[in-house]
Amino acid sequence: MPTVLVIGIGAGDPEHLTLQAVRALERADVVFVVDKGLAADKGDEKDDLRALRAEILARHRPDAGYRLVVAPEVDRDRGPGVERDPAAYRDVVVDWQDRRAALYREMLTSELGDGQTGAFLVWGDPSLYDGTLRLLDRVLDGVPGAWSVESIPGISSVSALAAAHRLILNRVGRPVLITTGRRIAEGIPDDVDDVVVMLDGRTAFATLPAAQRAELHVYWGAYLGTPDELLVAGPLDEVADEIVAVRGAARERKGWIMDTYLLRRGAGER
Amino acid sequence: MPTVLVIGIGAGDPEHLTLQAVRALERADVVFVVDKGLAADKGDEKDDLRALRAEILARHRPDAGYRLVVAPEVDRDRGPGVERDPAAYRDVVVDWQDRRAALYREMLTSELGDGQTGAFLVWGDPSLYDGTLRLLDRVLDGVPGAWSVESIPGISSVSALAAAHRLILNRVGRPVLITTGRRIAEGIPDDVDDVVVMLDGRTAFATLPAAQRAELHVYWGAYLGTPDELLVAGPLDEVADEIVAVRGAARERKGWIMDTYLLRRGAGER
Ligand SMILES: C[S@@+](CC[C@H](N)C(=O)[O-])C[C@H]1O[C@@H](n2cnc3c(N)ncnc32)[C@H](O)[C@@H]1O
Ligand SMILES: C[S@@+](CC[C@H](N)C(=O)[O-])C[C@H]1O[C@@H](n2cnc3c(N)ncnc32)[C@H](O)[C@@H]1O
Repeated sequence: MPTVLVIGIGAGDPEHLTLQAVRALERADVVFVVDKGLAADKGDEKDDLRALRAEILARHRPDAGYRLVVAPEVDRDRGPGVERDPAAYRDVVVDWQDRRAALYREMLTSELGDGQTGAFLVWGDPSLYDGTLRLLDRVLDGVPGAWSVESIPGISSVSALAAAHRLILNRVGRPVLITTGRRIAEGIPDDVDDVVVMLDGRTAFATLPAAQRAELHVYWGAYLGTPDELLVAGPLDEVADEIVAVRGAARERKGWIMDTYLLRRGAGER
Repeated sequence: MPTVLVIGIGAGDPEHLTLQAVRALERADVVFVVDKGLAADKGDEKDDLRALRAEILARHRPDAGYRLVVAPEVDRDRGPGVERDPAAYRDVVVDWQDRRAALYREMLTSELGDGQTGAFLVWGDPSLYDGTLRLLDRVLDGVPGAWSVESIPGISSVSALAAAHRLILNRVGRPVLITTGRRIAEGIPDDVDDVVVMLDGRTAFATLPAAQRAELHVYWGAYLGTPDELLVAGPLDEVADEIVAVRGAARERKGWIMDTYLLRRGAGER
C-alpha cells in the first residue's frame, strides 16, 4: 500500500520544522505541490511559499532523490450569480470538490507505486484552516484502503503568534477561541475573553462594535517567523489605526500579507 | 543581560522537538527544572516527564555542558476552608504567586551571570495552559529589563491529538474552541461545533446533557506521542463508556494519565 504524508512545515520559519517532519521528508519518494494561484491574483505570495518549500527541501533532501509533482489547481465558477445564490454556491463547491478529488485520485494512482511514499508540505499545522486532509478524505472515499494517510503536526501560526509576543493564549482555567475575520465582523462572543483571528482579509478588528473595542487588547503579527515579521500590540482603540497602516504598507510593498492576531478582554488581569 | 528561554518540547514524542528548539537547547548554560509534585500525589507522572526531559537533553546536549538547577515548588494552602471561600482563595493564590516569583527571581539572579542563557523546558507549547511565561512576567515585574525572555513554540497536545486522528480541527470557515473539562461540565456552548477539551480530570464528556451527547462525535487521545498512546473515536453516546473504561484502566496501570479530546457536532458533514 502506498503512503501519503501530510507534513506541517511550520508558519514561515524553516526552523519550525520538527525532527519528525524532517524524518518524514526523508521518506518521500514524491513531493506533491499544490500549485495555487497560477491563474489567481495572489501577488508574490506563491513565490515566497515556493521559496520556503525549496529551502526546506534543499536542506533536508540534499540527495534530491524525490520527484516533484505539481498538481494543477482545479478552477471554480466564481461568478457573481453564484456568490449571491446559496444553493447555486453549494452546488458549485460540491462539484468543484468532486472534480478536484478525482484529479488527485488519478494523480496519486499514477504517481505512487506500491510501497512508495508521497508527501504534501502544508503551511503551519495541517489541523488548522488547511484543506489537504479533507481533500485526501474525499479522494480515499472512492478507493477505500488504497493509501495510508499520516498527518505530521507542525507549528501553527497561532503558536508562532503567541511565541512572538511571549503570550499564553488562555487565562488561568479559561477558554480560547480560534476563528476567522469573517466570523468576528459582528463582534466577538460574550463567553470568551481570548480570541485568535485568522484569515482576516478585511481588518475586522478595526470595525468591531465600539463598546467591544474599548475593552480589548490586540496582539497582532504578520509574516510571523520570517525575516519580514511585523508585530504590534496594545489597547485596540489605541493601535488599530497603526495596524491598518502598517498592514496596508507591508501589503503594498510585498504584494501579499498573512496576518493573525489575538483579541483579549481585560488585558490588565492575569 | 542574561537570557531566559522558554522552550516548548512537544506533547510527548521527543521527535516533536523543532529545529529551533534544538538550537535553543544548544544555547543553554543552565537548564531549570520545576520540580512539580515532590510532595503532591502525582503517581509516576513526574518520572515520565523526567524521562522525556532526560532523553531530550542526552540527545541534543551530549556535551552535558550545562548546569541542571532544580527549582523547588512553593507550597500553597489547599485547606477546605480556603477552597470554599472565593476571597480567601484569591488571597492565598496571590500570596503564593508572589512568594513563588520572589523565589524564582532569587534563583535567576544567582544562577545566571551576565550574557548567560537559562532554559525552561515546557510540555507541549508554552502558550497553552502552561504557567511558565506568566510566572516569568511576575518575576520580571520586580526587576524590569533584568533578563530578556524568549518563547520557543512547540507542538501542543492539541496538534498532537489532531495528527493522531488525522483531523482538521475546524470545519470550513468555522471556529474552534479550546477549553477545560471544568468549563464544559454544564455543556458546550451553542455557537461552536468543534471543542477541544484539556485538563479534564473528571471525564466531563460522559456527563454532558443528553441532548448534546446525542449530536456529538468524540476524538479522544491519551499519552499522545508516546509509546503508550491510546486513541478512541466515534459517536459520543456509543463510545463514552469505552473511553471511561480504557482511561480508568490506563490510569490504574501507569499511575497517571494525560488526555485530550475533540467534541464535534454533526461529524457527518464536511
Ligand atoms: C489557510 S490558513 C493556514 C493556517 C496554517 N495551517 C497554520 O497552521 O497556521 C492561512 C492563515 O493563517 C495565518 N497565517 C499563516 N501563516 C502566517 C504567518 N507566517 N504570519 C501570520 N499569519 C499567518 C493567517 O491568518 C492566514 O490568513
Ligand atoms: C497543563 S496542560 C499543558 C498543555 C501543554 N502546554 C500543551 O501545549 O499541550 C496539561 C494538559 O494537556 C493535555 N496533554 C498534554 N500532553 C498530552 C498528551 N501527551 N496526551 C494527551 N493529552 C495531553 C492534557 O489535557 C493535560 O491535562
